[in-house]
Amino acid sequence: MANSDPSEKTKPMRKQVEEYIVSLQDQIVSSFETLDPGAPAFKRDSWVRAQGGTGQSCVFACPTDDVAVAQSTVLEKAGVNISIVHGTLPPAAIKQMRADHTSMPLPDRPDGLPFFAAGISLVVHPRNPHAPTVHANYRYFEITEPTEGTAGGSSPGELLAWWFGGGCDLTPSYLYEADATHFHSTLKTVCDKHGAQLYPAFKKWCDEYFYIPHRAETRGVGGIFFDDLNEGPHARLPPPPAAAPRPSTPADIFAFVRDLGDAFVPSYLPILTARHSLPHTPLQRRWQLVRRGRYVEFNLVYDRGTKFGLMTPGARIESILMSLPETARWEYMSDMGEEGTEEGRLMVVLRTPREWV
Amino acid sequence: MANSDPSEKTKPMRKQVEEYIVSLQDQIVSSFETLDPGAPAFKRDSWVRAQGGTGQSCVFACPTDDVAVAQSTVLEKAGVNISIVHGTLPPAAIKQMRADHTSMPLPDRPDGLPFFAAGISLVVHPRNPHAPTVHANYRYFEITEPTEGTAGGSSPGELLAWWFGGGCDLTPSYLYEADATHFHSTLKTVCDKHGAQLYPAFKKWCDEYFYIPHRAETRGVGGIFFDDLNEGPHARLPPPPAAAPRPSTPADIFAFVRDLGDAFVPSYLPILTARHSLPHTPLQRRWQLVRRGRYVEFNLVYDRGTKFGLMTPGARIESILMSLPETARWEYMSDMGEEGTEEGRLMVVLRTPREWV
Repeated sequence: MANSDPSEKTKPMRKQVEEYIVSLQDQIVSSFETLDPGAPAFKRDSWVRAQGGTGQSCVFACPTDDVAVAQSTVLEKAGVNISIVHGTLPPAAIKQMRADHTSMPLPDRPDGLPFFAAGISLVVHPRNPHAPTVHANYRYFEITEPTEGTAGGSSPGELLAWWFGGGCDLTPSYLYEADATHFHSTLKTVCDKHGAQLYPAFKKWCDEYFYIPHRAETRGVGGIFFDDLNEGPHARLPPPPAAAPRPSTPADIFAFVRDLGDAFVPSYLPILTARHSLPHTPLQRRWQLVRRGRYVEFNLVYDRGTKFGLMTPGARIESILMSLPETARWEYMSDMGEEGTEEGRLMVVLRTPREWV
Repeated sequence: MANSDPSEKTKPMRKQVEEYIVSLQDQIVSSFETLDPGAPAFKRDSWVRAQGGTGQSCVFACPTDDVAVAQSTVLEKAGVNISIVHGTLPPAAIKQMRADHTSMPLPDRPDGLPFFAAGISLVVHPRNPHAPTVHANYRYFEITEPTEGTAGGSSPGELLAWWFGGGCDLTPSYLYEADATHFHSTLKTVCDKHGAQLYPAFKKWCDEYFYIPHRAETRGVGGIFFDDLNEGPHARLPPPPAAAPRPSTPADIFAFVRDLGDAFVPSYLPILTARHSLPHTPLQRRWQLVRRGRYVEFNLVYDRGTKFGLMTPGARIESILMSLPETARWEYMSDMGEEGTEEGRLMVVLRTPREWV
């Protein structure tokens, strides 16, 4: 998805990002629909945010009244959301943002500061226990000086801070080493094109972020995770002079994020294609639901984005909680996952993250 | 469960509470086992806390490899736990405790303060969608001066603070007004015996506590909830001279809590007995699982006890998360719960708590 049109360069970044995520959402949803033409189409749900902005949730679900009847679709539940929103961050939110993004020099303003945020966020839970869940999220954030009569929107004030963030991670119920390696290799190839230190730093960050402390295990086999990527020094990347080249202009970082977004389909679809119709037992389905319980635990207890969303008045709860699986299961002192079983093989790599490439 | 033995009065409160919750646990578990003699017995799981104390989890579960096969037991998942623990609260925990229990004058101590806590906690998820989930919890807490060579345990130092807390609440998937009324009446009768202002204050507290802000609904039809009950003034109860008589000595508060504990079986078993074998449809099961998803949301995102437990190093995670249902369900923009349906009738009382007695 190269920008060969030179007029692209003159477009504001917020516009470039918006156009990109709109097309990426369409491309990703189409890939899933093409893979399973007999399944219901994703439900496209456009919405307008009263305080400023728009979005589109594309959701796959086929709830049945009889939850005991096995469905035959490849996906069980999936959501591919985009949102392009703007408004004013109140002083309390600026304070929180300063704590979460320590590299951003945000001034105090009694009336708050205008912000703009555009992002794509997806979670796909396939039905087959051998096919892993996947999550990806890429986002762009701007904070600007207040201008008279606007709160972000079409004529923003001077840019005070901007950054890109994102990531992509894989959550299998059964460990296929080849899948984990393919997923990580695809991400590493994209990262390496933009700087040799990116993959190691962001792979490690992912293992740390998608961690469930009370279970002492990671959510899945990881991928990459990053935040606060802009022209300034970055806490997770080596400072000069040790620093190898890495994207630091808005255009270069956007090119990196675009390459990652474009890599989503090739990183995941081959895995889903290989696994979605493997034979499986009721016991394997049960284990998959137990693992989905852990997914729910991570998202509701630890995920920063989910928690932030739930606490935000007027947030679109259905879009935030779209990440939750259709069904999850909790067993007291489950007898599954023991050493020496297929389930136990997964637990080993969740307890001690592995280098996959 | 009157204490006719005069030697009871001379026993330390921590011992009296321990003996009571041990017998209450046994009584409650036996009631469920008697109701469903064909079901597997509760699993009795005694444990020892490395840092001091013991407990027993009594858990009902009959996981099957084939999650699609309907089971025939009255209960789907249940846990009735007791714990009697002691140790040292580190300064950070004292600080947190001071914030959560503002009526407790806790001194700063660089080495922390000894504590003792004894409680019973139960959650019962029946299988039938017409039978409501129930939760109850009663607990006693002491904080004492450090004494040389002990950290709580057998010879505690001077009592710095003590309080009782607890509550009991009902979470139906389908609204039977008679059930809600019976449950609340039973609790109100016990409360009224000990002070006329108790039920109104603790009923309101329950509605406020078991509330899911991001859904703008309560978890269920409530019951009672209270904390920080001791001889001092209480933020939720009218101050003198308006105050009606209410239990304020340790013996009187313990008598109140004991009466509440004894009321658990009569408050809930008749409801379970009436509902557990009602015919139901797959759609009603689906709705029950959607409501269980909300139960999970409350417990993982908001419940103070669960959050505190998950953050406590060395906590027994399986006992803390025993409260989660065996299965829960999340649907994007579910079409269930609309006005004019049986599901919608429940939503009305979850959005606007009702007076049941």
